[in-house]
Amino acid sequence: FKAPIRWGIASAGLISSDFVNAIDISPYKADHEVVAVAARSQAKAEEFAKTFGIKKAYVGYERLAEDPDIDVVYVGTINIAHLDNCLMLINAGKSVLCEKPMGMNVKETKQVLEAAQAKNVFVMEAMWTRCNPLQLKIQEDIKNGVIGDVMQANVTFGGKMAADRIVKKDLGGGSLLVVGIYAIYVLQMAFGDEVPEKIIATGNKSSEGVDHSVSAILQYKNGKMGCFSLSTQIALANEAHIFGTDGQIKVGIPMWAPSHINIKGKELKINLPESKIKFNFLNSAALAFEAEHVRECLCNGLKQSYLVPHSITLTVAEIMENIRKQLGVEYPQDK
Amino acid sequence: FKAPIRWGIASAGLISSDFVNAIDISPYKADHEVVAVAARSQAKAEEFAKTFGIKKAYVGYERLAEDPDIDVVYVGTINIAHLDNCLMLINAGKSVLCEKPMGMNVKETKQVLEAAQAKNVFVMEAMWTRCNPLQLKIQEDIKNGVIGDVMQANVTFGGKMAADRIVKKDLGGGSLLVVGIYAIYVLQMAFGDEVPEKIIATGNKSSEGVDHSVSAILQYKNGKMGCFSLSTQIALANEAHIFGTDGQIKVGIPMWAPSHINIKGKELKINLPESKIKFNFLNSAALAFEAEHVRECLCNGLKQSYLVPHSITLTVAEIMENIRKQLGVEYPQDK
Repeated sequence: FKAPIRWGIASAGLISSDFVNAIDISPYKADHEVVAVAARSQAKAEEFAKTFGIKKAYVGYERLAEDPDIDVVYVGTINIAHLDNCLMLINAGKSVLCEKPMGMNVKETKQVLEAAQAKNVFVMEAMWTRCNPLQLKIQEDIKNGVIGDVMQANVTFGGKMAADRIVKKDLGGGSLLVVGIYAIYVLQMAFGDEVPEKIIATGNKSSEGVDHSVSAILQYKNGKMGCFSLSTQIALANEAHIFGTDGQIKVGIPMWAPSHINIKGKELKINLPESKIKFNFLNSAALAFEAEHVRECLCNGLKQSYLVPHSITLTVAEIMENIRKQLGVEYPQDK
Repeated sequence: FKAPIRWGIASAGLISSDFVNAIDISPYKADHEVVAVAARSQAKAEEFAKTFGIKKAYVGYERLAEDPDIDVVYVGTINIAHLDNCLMLINAGKSVLCEKPMGMNVKETKQVLEAAQAKNVFVMEAMWTRCNPLQLKIQEDIKNGVIGDVMQANVTFGGKMAADRIVKKDLGGGSLLVVGIYAIYVLQMAFGDEVPEKIIATGNKSSEGVDHSVSAILQYKNGKMGCFSLSTQIALANEAHIFGTDGQIKVGIPMWAPSHINIKGKELKINLPESKIKFNFLNSAALAFEAEHVRECLCNGLKQSYLVPHSITLTVAEIMENIRKQLGVEYPQDK
């Protein structure tokens, strides 16, 4: 691979729009070319292509797999489609950046990761939080002992969310898969990506049995503890606090895409560029850091991201499945 | 009873000092008279009496029980002494305001409450948070549906605490009894003092088996959840967040004695008076609200506080005992 990296975009939905928008207004724009967008309808694909000045508008994601001008595909489809989308693209030899969660459960996640490893192509779960410069700064400071030993970390992620893909079971909705994964990734970051020793959780479910709210405690070795609360029904604080033996780090709203953090009383900010095309989600301009990270990985011939390696994606999938079992939330994909 | 209410002070320690200091500088000063202080040594009692201009300095708390000039005794002794102190005073017919926790466990708490009921004297657990005007405002707003239905509440209480009475098991130390009780009272307030349906907790213990940190989730009916994290080893945020279907309330540091809160984006503050004599704990001037509440209860012939009724003290003791069992923390008093 060499710059500019040539992207295909699978799905013309809200998050795909933000992803392309973020690249377009970023300082990295010249390193990236969005070659094609594919949707399930021609009209939707063409509208998206027109908005962002993309040359090709396809119906069906297979067209992206077949296009020799595409290096890497961003999969922005709904959760239940990730497995099939990824396998199809990987088997066609495409590199993939797949929206979180990569799979509906551990089994699906493993299938994607193993397929990529077998085909020797790059695949990464689109955990953009891990590519955010402020989170990288936190990670570095924690490693350097700036706040001593991290003993406790608490995270919340909740909002009123009505979209079917978020609350409907058959579309892969649920607070854990949709927003909880961010909280878990932040806790894992705080505790150096150790595997938790113990997980306890409780929550409440909608009438169709999908988790609407979850609170959980992850216990790591030496009595370190991470707690999170989620809701798809009500707004929570949407911050993260990391407490060490020698100081605290606060990650401001939204903790999954921070533009301001506080380390031991010192404020740090990043300025995210503004866009003429409206972003759908908070601080989505930060998606450009993720796109640029993928480009860097590909240019260096990596088959995994070092910021979101396969092992961590799998650990997080295992944590989510463990918690879902405690809540009694089961998807058709679990059978 | 009629004003001024005549107080006896059991123990000349840090919290007793703050309690008397708070009354002295409060607008309620004229309604209260601190008649006597008792300590285990004459020198300590006399020094305390001199500092605050108290007439009588006793050795031994029995002297307070025998003094006909005393209406009510503030018990500021260490946790393991509360049971004996309270029973002795109650049996002498004295009203009692006893520092939290009233007992080391449910059994002791019941003993105190039942003794007071049998003797028909006033006894109250000194949960001053419940007497704080800002918490009363929160309680009222929640009742009036200002933030809709409260669905989630999260609280932290942690600091580096080295005192033996806080970390030593044989002195009744432990994060739950020492600081956790505040977090639980705040959660109970947020959820209208319902009894939790489910409690899950984990934590870590010192080498002698006392809890140094605890994280717990209390689940109330209709999927409402309260979470708290405690530590006697490291500083936590020491805030409380209450999340409703129609807005949030944030209780600022220190959440157990707030001087500022935020209700749906609106800041509310109280100005606590300053003192020439240094307070030992944060915002201790707010202890005066508790003293004044006790006076009001006594003047009205009440045998329980309506802000901290016996039933709630017992429920909180039951929650703490439940959590301690999950952690495997046992005191000699549990046998």
